[in-house]
Amino acid sequence: MGLDEVARKPHERLMAWLAADMEAVNVMIRDRMASEHAPRIPQVTAHLVEAGGKRLRPLLTLAAARLCGYDGPFHIHLAATVEFIHTATLLHDDVVDESRQRRGRPTANLLWDNKSSVLVGDYLFARSFQLMTETGSMRVMEILSNASATIAEGEVLQLTAAQDLATTEAIYLQVVRGKTAALFSAATEVGGVIAGADAAQVRALYTYGDALGIAFQIADDLLDYGGSSATIGKNVGDDFRERKLTLPVIKAVAHATPEERAFWERTIAKGHQAEGDLEQALAIMARHGAMEAARADALAWADTARHALEALPDHPIRGMLSELAAYVVSRIS
Amino acid sequence: MGLDEVARKPHERLMAWLAADMEAVNVMIRDRMASEHAPRIPQVTAHLVEAGGKRLRPLLTLAAARLCGYDGPFHIHLAATVEFIHTATLLHDDVVDESRQRRGRPTANLLWDNKSSVLVGDYLFARSFQLMTETGSMRVMEILSNASATIAEGEVLQLTAAQDLATTEAIYLQVVRGKTAALFSAATEVGGVIAGADAAQVRALYTYGDALGIAFQIADDLLDYGGSSATIGKNVGDDFRERKLTLPVIKAVAHATPEERAFWERTIAKGHQAEGDLEQALAIMARHGAMEAARADALAWADTARHALEALPDHPIRGMLSELAAYVVSRIS
Repeated sequence: MGLDEVARKPHERLMAWLAADMEAVNVMIRDRMASEHAPRIPQVTAHLVEAGGKRLRPLLTLAAARLCGYDGPFHIHLAATVEFIHTATLLHDDVVDESRQRRGRPTANLLWDNKSSVLVGDYLFARSFQLMTETGSMRVMEILSNASATIAEGEVLQLTAAQDLATTEAIYLQVVRGKTAALFSAATEVGGVIAGADAAQVRALYTYGDALGIAFQIADDLLDYGGSSATIGKNVGDDFRERKLTLPVIKAVAHATPEERAFWERTIAKGHQAEGDLEQALAIMARHGAMEAARADALAWADTARHALEALPDHPIRGMLSELAAYVVSRIS
Repeated sequence: MGLDEVARKPHERLMAWLAADMEAVNVMIRDRMASEHAPRIPQVTAHLVEAGGKRLRPLLTLAAARLCGYDGPFHIHLAATVEFIHTATLLHDDVVDESRQRRGRPTANLLWDNKSSVLVGDYLFARSFQLMTETGSMRVMEILSNASATIAEGEVLQLTAAQDLATTEAIYLQVVRGKTAALFSAATEVGGVIAGADAAQVRALYTYGDALGIAFQIADDLLDYGGSSATIGKNVGDDFRERKLTLPVIKAVAHATPEERAFWERTIAKGHQAEGDLEQALAIMARHGAMEAARADALAWADTARHALEALPDHPIRGMLSELAAYVVSRIS
């Protein structure tokens, strides 16, 4: 391994290792997102797909399948499937969150309209479903339909829990599974299933994806209170302004003094925010070590992910997946 | 058959014939629309499900399966599946159309918000997908995933074609297949597939559902220009005010004089509508026999549906399906 290799981030090395597979996935995505009849569909989708993103979910499927020795054609379908599901949820999320920016570009709901985002999301969801059907694996269909239900359920839960100070860490975890971890774990699990891995290996792949997704999301929550727009593609304090009960806030609320409680009531529950409130929120969280506690949780989840890999074959991909788990929390270490 | 039986509408007689099956479908719908974690989900769904609706799509699945001699358990899953897909599309449609009323009640997007409608629709779509997976039939998955893609594609097409006077009858047909006929034909087709019907019978069931759906939708378009709010659950002229290019308008535009063309440009393409425009639209359509021509199309599609049934077993259900095809156009005869 040359110096260049060492310097690369783990997902970039995974991407390089799986470059031929990923190219096949990209071809399939372009092919299947087309619509003979409705040109609006590829316009909206291309806007998102071309904006790039890390393609982390399809990469996880490809990695899991190859790690388990798969050499058939269907890991490509499954990787494209998870990217379609992901893109569909992004389109719907942007409508629900009234977002204006995604991956550093204006969102589809801003460029076109909410209607297009809703319907093109539905189209991609249906397409993902067609793609996975082609694999002929019932177990794959079960995993991905369960993940889809968990995603939607988590999103609804987030909607209703969003401004509710009674939100517990258990509810937070459920929301995070819906938002991120359910698709991560489905992505790795179906890779193992299509490769015919044994039950213990499939279970390990599920655990890896689940824990990686949770670590990733907690890190994202932390960065929202401390990252820069360039790093995370959004502005510091967005979650606070959108009154989201992310993990650091939940931890701070749990230890709040009466005055602090009144502050969270006003800014999050009622949404009456004023100049300087973000700074005050940061100060309160610092007082209770809320950021440090959330950071410790993220590191523990990353460890869980790395330990799960021990059940899987000794393979260069396994090493890169392990480094990936370390990497998602390195942003906050 | 007593006088009461004769007086009933065909779908009511089908419903009575299949009452035990339909009760099982209702139980399954209530069971599967629940969410342990997100109470907003059953609230939104119950609002729609309890409002009733005709349950026409699940009825078609049950009828097709029983007509082909099925006596297993999975027609119940499939009937619940098509109702979930239908309900999911209604929730998303109401967001896209900014509707305020559905089945004579305020829409979910009005009672809660667009966010809930989008996400609960996604949840029901995922649930439908879990349900059909339980049947273990790959062919069923293909049919329903293809139908889902056609539905979404048709909706996007409707969105972009909505105010475009260049919309042809061919595009209209594609939109109608997405809006209505794709789920009708999938509903009947999967009933035959699960029953193990032969290819010719499955094809006939597809054709019946497709033609019935098209006849139904054209009739709906006609009623929008001539029905009463009590009959159709919406107000006369809604489509005109929403600038929808439905079949009578497309036919009138095709024969428009220059002045008429200017009228359609102003009212539909540009959306500048004034007092008396609806009456003028009706007068122009009458001048070109547009309503009569659309009515003739609907009758021809109903005939296609009835003829398709000839390939199916001689059975009381077949008679009721035939009468149902006649009934959907009787509202406009």
